Amino acid sequence: MPRPTSPILSADRIADAAIDLVDAGKPFGVNALARQLGVTPSSLYNHVEGRDAIVELMRGRLAVRSAIEVPDGLAWHEVVEYVVRAQRSMFAEHPLVLPLLVGKPVTDVTVLGYYEALAEALLSAGFPDDDVLVIVAVLDAFALGSGLDLSAPPEVWKADPGSALGRLVAGGERGSIRADRAFHLGVELLLTSLRVRLAEMAEPA
Amino acid sequence: MPRPTSPILSADRIADAAIDLVDAGKPFGVNALARQLGVTPSSLYNHVEGRDAIVELMRGRLAVRSAIEVPDGLAWHEVVEYVVRAQRSMFAEHPLVLPLLVGKPVTDVTVLGYYEALAEALLSAGFPDDDVLVIVAVLDAFALGSGLDLSAPPEVWKADPGSALGRLVAGGERGSIRADRAFHLGVELLLTSLRVRLAEMAEPA
Repeated sequence: MPRPTSPILSADRIADAAIDLVDAGKPFGVNALARQLGVTPSSLYNHVEGRDAIVELMRGRLAVRSAIEVPDGLAWHEVVEYVVRAQRSMFAEHPLVLPLLVGKPVTDVTVLGYYEALAEALLSAGFPDDDVLVIVAVLDAFALGSGLDLSAPPEVWKADPGSALGRLVAGGERGSIRADRAFHLGVELLLTSLRVRLAEMAEPA
Repeated sequence: MPRPTSPILSADRIADAAIDLVDAGKPFGVNALARQLGVTPSSLYNHVEGRDAIVELMRGRLAVRSAIEVPDGLAWHEVVEYVVRAQRSMFAEHPLVLPLLVGKPVTDVTVLGYYEALAEALLSAGFPDDDVLVIVAVLDAFALGSGLDLSAPPEVWKADPGSALGRLVAGGERGSIRADRAFHLGVELLLTSLRVRLAEMAEPA
């Protein structure tokens, strides 16, 4: 029997190739991906319905590669911190993939799983239904932006040394130390305010 | 005298063409941009030193197009809100440009101008030198992520209707109403915590 001339296509292999393609700044589409995989577009269509389905494979694959799975038994604020931190690491390594992921509805079960854990944690903390997805979106935005911030150059601003900005840059931290401090402060600021909000809701009107 | 066969190159024209190219998901580089502009790479090099310089032109052009200029006489928290809001709008329209902008040091004067206004506002509020750029990075991350969030589809999660997430999605707001509510809440959470931090610093030890 003839042997296949290239490894058999699988969802993981398609997702990995798509992530590599986008990471490399190449245009992303079914035809380009088929070329990258060394298969015909029609054999790729046997495995995925099209561009949107490939984006969804990429989303799930990145979550699996990053092993994002919320541990049991965490307090609500620990779940918040876990998800924000894990997402930030995942996003930081693939900044060019982010606009694709954000533009499509989430259907991947691994990713839905950690959003479910986050929603349940916020509900258990006492946030009303009406607040939970709004808070999730705030946390998501911060994780996305912090992930992008990790790809910033060591010196973010080349400012006039005589300006306030220039003086602060000269005296401040750089690179991932700067980005990590900002991430920790952001999580702290958001959690502090969420606690204030819970306490205000608990007060008798 | 022979007339030029294409409009004369200018920094703005180069920046606009580069933004269009990236917005369209096309690979970005000096050669691709020269083709887009209908000029030779060498005539493009007469105007810009290379890829990094083009990214910087794009950054400045987007800020000018969005007319980001912090008005005088605002309170510190109003400056924070102005800059975060203006950046979010600018980023939202060009999600594919963001990873390029974040990856390079800021040298554009318009952009340095609004960061300077933000740094000065935070210093005037009473934040110590050591805190200011860290807070700026937190605000930047939130603006970046919120800008990306505006390009999310109307229904962000296609979750099992029996899950907490599915129930909340079914009852929640959608599209830009959802994204706007999250943005307002995020600004409120961050400002609340920054005020708490200032108040704690003002207390006698």
